[in-house]
Amino acid sequence: GIDALMEPLHPADIADLLEQVSDGERESWLALWSRGIDGEVLSELDWGLREEVIALLPGDVLADAVRELDSDDVVDLVEDLEDDQIEAILEVLEPADRVAVEQALAYPEETAGRLMQREVVHAPEHWTVGEMIDYLRAHAGQLPEQFYHVILTDPRMKPTGYVTLGRLLSSARQTPLQDIVEDSFRVIPATQHEDDVAYAFNQYHLISAPVVDEDGRLVGVITIDDAMIVLDEGAEEEILKLAGVGEESSLSDRVLETTKQRFPWLFVNLITAILASLVIAQFEDAIAQIVALAVLMPIVASMGGNAGTQSLTVAVRALATRDLTSSNLMRVVLREGVVGLINGAAFALVMGIVGLVWFGSPALGGVIAAAMVINLFVAGLAGILIPVVLDRLNIDPALASGAFVTTVTDVVGFFAFLGLAVVFLL
Amino acid sequence: GIDALMEPLHPADIADLLEQVSDGERESWLALWSRGIDGEVLSELDWGLREEVIALLPGDVLADAVRELDSDDVVDLVEDLEDDQIEAILEVLEPADRVAVEQALAYPEETAGRLMQREVVHAPEHWTVGEMIDYLRAHAGQLPEQFYHVILTDPRMKPTGYVTLGRLLSSARQTPLQDIVEDSFRVIPATQHEDDVAYAFNQYHLISAPVVDEDGRLVGVITIDDAMIVLDEGAEEEILKLAGVGEESSLSDRVLETTKQRFPWLFVNLITAILASLVIAQFEDAIAQIVALAVLMPIVASMGGNAGTQSLTVAVRALATRDLTSSNLMRVVLREGVVGLINGAAFALVMGIVGLVWFGSPALGGVIAAAMVINLFVAGLAGILIPVVLDRLNIDPALASGAFVTTVTDVVGFFAFLGLAVVFLL
Ligand SMILES: [Mg+2]
Ligand SMILES: [Mg+2]
Ligand SMILES: [Mg+2]
Ligand SMILES: [Mg+2]
Ligand SMILES: [Mg+2]
Ligand SMILES: [Mg+2]
Ligand SMILES: [Mg+2]
Ligand SMILES: [Mg+2]
Ligand SMILES: [Mg+2]
Ligand SMILES: [Mg+2]
Ligand SMILES: [Mg+2]
Ligand SMILES: [Mg+2]
Ligand SMILES: [Mg+2]
Repeated sequence: GIDALMEPLHPADIADLLEQVSDGERESWLALWSRGIDGEVLSELDWGLREEVIALLPGDVLADAVRELDSDDVVDLVEDLEDDQIEAILEVLEPADRVAVEQALAYPEETAGRLMQREVVHAPEHWTVGEMIDYLRAHAGQLPEQFYHVILTDPRMKPTGYVTLGRLLSSARQTPLQDIVEDSFRVIPATQHEDDVAYAFNQYHLISAPVVDEDGRLVGVITIDDAMIVLDEGAEEEILKLAGVGEESSLSDRVLETTKQRFPWLFVNLITAILASLVIAQFEDAIAQIVALAVLMPIVASMGGNAGTQSLTVAVRALATRDLTSSNLMRVVLREGVVGLINGAAFALVMGIVGLVWFGSPALGGVIAAAMVINLFVAGLAGILIPVVLDRLNIDPALASGAFVTTVTDVVGFFAFLGLAVVFLL
Repeated sequence: GIDALMEPLHPADIADLLEQVSDGERESWLALWSRGIDGEVLSELDWGLREEVIALLPGDVLADAVRELDSDDVVDLVEDLEDDQIEAILEVLEPADRVAVEQALAYPEETAGRLMQREVVHAPEHWTVGEMIDYLRAHAGQLPEQFYHVILTDPRMKPTGYVTLGRLLSSARQTPLQDIVEDSFRVIPATQHEDDVAYAFNQYHLISAPVVDEDGRLVGVITIDDAMIVLDEGAEEEILKLAGVGEESSLSDRVLETTKQRFPWLFVNLITAILASLVIAQFEDAIAQIVALAVLMPIVASMGGNAGTQSLTVAVRALATRDLTSSNLMRVVLREGVVGLINGAAFALVMGIVGLVWFGSPALGGVIAAAMVINLFVAGLAGILIPVVLDRLNIDPALASGAFVTTVTDVVGFFAFLGLAVVFLL
């Protein structure tokens, strides 16, 4: 039966299966599956499906599932649910766990306070290795499932350093913890944005890091596995935003939801496309006289759009990874401009020849060649400058750069090509 | 001076600074900076700059820098260098380290064997907690800087399970290691692709995992920080490939390198743009009679291109995250088609009205409306089917889908709009 099928699977794989089957199959699986669903499976589920699956679970199965989770996983599970579902889940927690979850939920969304687990192993800074080991043996039942460091605290609960479990295990019992403390030590403010947390873990190869409140007191710990998820989700969001797809889109979204996510970007694109058409409309007479202009003009616009997308993607990425700073901005702008000029010249040559051969007109070849150089140069500059300016204005460059840059390359492409045609061909 | 400035910085931040300054500044920094550069800084540097910085370092500074690194970091440092630079670095290593690095380099690029460190803490499966602790204390000097688990091995060095350091520390000395072994246990074959390794770490929340050779014997261990870097680089490559930017592009690349990276995609795009122009050329007569067609046709093509990019990005992402499988493919294809139809209908209405108001022709409005529905429907289907087919053919969908999908939407867009115009307007 279904038990034998699911038993050997990791919760993450079970969640994936639940995401991939149809709604009907999912319901009958959940009804059939006697062991019920455990907390790990729930916390692995796409947030779009959690609400639905939670609503399908009997109260006692849900209660058992939630009680086994660490506080950070409960927070992650409930934070996007409706208020009544949150209340139902908080009610089944033990009072201490409930307080921990509620305190985490009091921090703003997407901050370290939401990401941390409250279960922290810490010790007074004056302890020895032996005292620490005795403490851990005496409290074996209450320790977090996974921990990698012991955080040293002063009497006011401010973290002062940390000891890796490897050093602890390989040091003599009488060694003071102070003697084996790691030399690099970073604390994370509870209100720090999760993207900054993920950046710090990735940049400094952290495995876990203590989280402190506004008074500098230890309130929790963030572990690398949770930071890795934030990093991964951040990259996913960036990809989706660059493509004009709602950043929370998921494969298990329904038709209506998907349609609504895709519509806004298409609508923005329609506006920009109409803008480009207004430019073309200024040259109706020229097109009526030389229809070849209508045949060739999309090439100039399309090349500009692609070159601009290349530059803007590099710029958006570099802003996200913090590799584009005031110390290299001017050099990168210059590089993008020069690259645009060189590639523009290369494709000007190719298109000049195509124009000449296809339509037998050297002047037409020259016009498309000149328009190509202009548009690829502008594409390079717009592709880097627009994301940087948006970023300075605190507008998400991944979300907005595409529309601006392609508007520029469309307008400049059509205007340069048709304008030069009017001057030199009519 | 420069020492006081650099001293408090993390190696990753020093590497970022070296990446962001100009070539001239970098050279004078390296010449000035008496402490020299340490191994950590070298291994944090962009690989494009490593070769250059290594060439600038005096031999003894380089030797000191390399000797302090773990074997996995040395492998990562040398694997992309020229043969003579590799030889120079291997020469300064102690013989045992050199063997470890050479063995890792014998595995194919981008495999687990390249990613693992040889320094592993393992123990016979019959040991007790006390024996383990005594062993660790006796070998404190030879342990890896960071380790999170002890891997249990049978007499033939096959890993049979692992114990977390937290369990080890919180258990009584006489406890057999077998009693505190974790229940989930995954080994990674040394020849597994690094993307699959990163997927496993992310999917199963691994912190470290033993690597085995073809006989199942323990040869190393991969830790989550290195898996996180692979995951991060994979997402970065996907973003760059989707935008037609060389996947190894970096902000510190020079003009010539950047031009060469961008050219191929622009060239592919030129071919597809010319294809679209050939479609337009079939309708020169119609355009000569109704110039409004030239004004409006880019709108249909542009909307199709954007809708297709939305679908293909979702598909490429889902293939990368393994969320798109045979169990949900048909449903996702259907969804993309229906979403295309609905958004197509919405924008058909908008453009029908725009066409009517702008050019005063209900028939022209009807033609652009019909072309919009057709192209957005085709865009949805092409956006999902093309990446899936490319993936089945073992062609990287992130790299190739864009050109195919936009060719389809350009050709279909121009053909549908101009073709319908010929039928209904002439
Ligand atoms: Mg999943
Ligand atoms: Mg957990
Ligand atoms: Mg969350
Ligand atoms: Mg956690
Ligand atoms: Mg976010
Ligand atoms: Mg960086
Ligand atoms: Mg860097
Ligand atoms: Mg190291
Ligand atoms: Mg290292
Ligand atoms: Mg490498
Ligand atoms: Mg490592
Ligand atoms: Mg790769
Ligand atoms: Mg998945």
